[in-house]
Amino acid sequence: MTNEEHKILYVPGPIEVKRDTREACAKPMIGHRTKDFKALYAAIKPKLKKVFYTENAVMVSTSSGSGYMEAAIRNLVGKKVLNCVNGAFSKKWYDIAVSCGRPADKLEVPSGKAIKPEMVDEKLKTGAYDAICITHNETSTGVMNNLEELAAVVRKYPDVMFLVDCVSSMSGAKVEVDKLGIDMCLTSSQKAFALPPGLAMASVSARAFAKADKMPGRGYYFDLIELKKSYEKDETPYTPAVSLMYGLNHQLDKMLAEGLDARFERHKRFAKKTREWVKKMGFELFPEPGYESVTMTCIVDTKGMDLKKMQENMGKKGFSVDKGYGKMNEKLGAEGKKLTFRIPHMGDTTDQDLDELLAAFEEVIKTL
Amino acid sequence: MTNEEHKILYVPGPIEVKRDTREACAKPMIGHRTKDFKALYAAIKPKLKKVFYTENAVMVSTSSGSGYMEAAIRNLVGKKVLNCVNGAFSKKWYDIAVSCGRPADKLEVPSGKAIKPEMVDEKLKTGAYDAICITHNETSTGVMNNLEELAAVVRKYPDVMFLVDCVSSMSGAKVEVDKLGIDMCLTSSQKAFALPPGLAMASVSARAFAKADKMPGRGYYFDLIELKKSYEKDETPYTPAVSLMYGLNHQLDKMLAEGLDARFERHKRFAKKTREWVKKMGFELFPEPGYESVTMTCIVDTKGMDLKKMQENMGKKGFSVDKGYGKMNEKLGAEGKKLTFRIPHMGDTTDQDLDELLAAFEEVIKTL
Repeated sequence: MTNEEHKILYVPGPIEVKRDTREACAKPMIGHRTKDFKALYAAIKPKLKKVFYTENAVMVSTSSGSGYMEAAIRNLVGKKVLNCVNGAFSKKWYDIAVSCGRPADKLEVPSGKAIKPEMVDEKLKTGAYDAICITHNETSTGVMNNLEELAAVVRKYPDVMFLVDCVSSMSGAKVEVDKLGIDMCLTSSQKAFALPPGLAMASVSARAFAKADKMPGRGYYFDLIELKKSYEKDETPYTPAVSLMYGLNHQLDKMLAEGLDARFERHKRFAKKTREWVKKMGFELFPEPGYESVTMTCIVDTKGMDLKKMQENMGKKGFSVDKGYGKMNEKLGAEGKKLTFRIPHMGDTTDQDLDELLAAFEEVIKTL
Repeated sequence: MTNEEHKILYVPGPIEVKRDTREACAKPMIGHRTKDFKALYAAIKPKLKKVFYTENAVMVSTSSGSGYMEAAIRNLVGKKVLNCVNGAFSKKWYDIAVSCGRPADKLEVPSGKAIKPEMVDEKLKTGAYDAICITHNETSTGVMNNLEELAAVVRKYPDVMFLVDCVSSMSGAKVEVDKLGIDMCLTSSQKAFALPPGLAMASVSARAFAKADKMPGRGYYFDLIELKKSYEKDETPYTPAVSLMYGLNHQLDKMLAEGLDARFERHKRFAKKTREWVKKMGFELFPEPGYESVTMTCIVDTKGMDLKKMQENMGKKGFSVDKGYGKMNEKLGAEGKKLTFRIPHMGDTTDQDLDELLAAFEEVIKTL
């Protein structure tokens, strides 16, 4: 596919990567055991800490976010983990725990619903758990859990590791890691960071490192202790994805130049605009009220449109869009319920980009 | 660092990535659950099979080569693994086995020596092992083990999984996976493939998949069974590094356009030229005769030069070069032995590139 034929990417991750960022990734290579690489990682570290609102180490992994989810489970779950499940991506926490042979329970709510603090409290007060996993923004349903409310409950239990997947929220929404007391908070490059996929980033608290240090079965690639040793020397234990780290440094500079608060406000404004458009078009929002994501909007297709056709026609207009999360729409369809589709509004999207996207949707929807 | 300031990268990995390849990686993003991505992976697969000389699945991982080494250990070692160690990178096999809690023995020879078939035979005939790990090209010492001779012995033991690290040899040297009977053969992007780091590629035999299917403790990210299920649909189980896969497809096209035999001959010619230069300059080769790598040359600094100064002065001439593998030179130094440095000649290097590099070395060495 040539640049000319490129459809602008509006699926809820991977998100469109702007030309300046792709060009930043295309700089000539450097050795990862050189001063130049150390300088690159040293430049990235304090900027990542700002985005995560933390004094904890924020490390970079050559993997998708799933890799750092496995790291969280392997290094920080001993007794039993409580996996909060409200969609396909939060369920991954449970699947990983099972794959890694760690005792695990699900705290599950129906699709479209949020995890509530009282549900968590009820489970944690049993004393059965030494870790809890939550997905901040459930990309399959457009539900954004309320981390402030959840953290207030989780932090009543000092022996419970607080593990949060912020894959599709970090840098699009304010997640104050230290204030919330998150022990491991992870994200990946291809969502609100607006980078190509291939990197994961995670903050790890001092008490999490202390727990990991005594944990058997950490494995090799996702061993937090080895990652930490290298991180402290501005290195990685094994060859890092240097080109993507060039891009990460570039994107962090852009974020801080925009200003983090301005960036979060922009995402809120886009979310508001998209929700208003949804109502104007006669659709409904899928998430329960008060828990709508700021980085993407999940829409109930109340008109019963041909979503595949919608996707195709949007493609003809130059937009690569979503026709709903496959497994969830299959389930909704089987239950005789209305299907969903999703519009992302995160990363480097501008007001003009979003206006053009919504206008194109409007034109296509009218023809269906 | 701007392009203008870039030093051409001549460490034995990561290797210099040419501009056309970096530009191929910089194409606009596509969703990884789209037809476009399936077409990309489907295009890559048969080309990888040609380079690996195999009918086995050749899968792509978003990780360094170390990740696929962990996959090999986790999925294919049950009883006990024999790790053949002749340098720092082959020792990694042993470290990973220990990290993953798998019973492991080392078959160790001194640095600069190759692993010999009779040593392997003696170990395997005990019946203690269900897997053997070998590093084809030991990047820390410049020794290339003879896979043909080793395979002839290993394949006498049908219950032993044959696991080979070809990180710094694949596509620079002919490795006929099917003819050699290799069960899992892995490489990574930043060596002879001349791509940015961040991808690993591995072939997996049918009998290896069958063994993995019954293996407990495979984990999540490096579970060969899940990787296989997605591979068969031209997908990956989790978000892949799309930009690097664009580059991989581009490099594979370049390799096949050059012709694999021509490519291997070019690497042999570069190795011969470099070895002749070594002798002309009055240095010695570090590897034992007959086992010199074709992708890089490890040189004994018989003149006792200031290798750090050499590296600095080469930097001033625009070349980022090696001053010897750190840990090995520390050990050699402690033993009062002469130190080493390494010259890579792999990937997209041309005759002119190599001539310029050797000429620069010659000028710098004269001043030391």
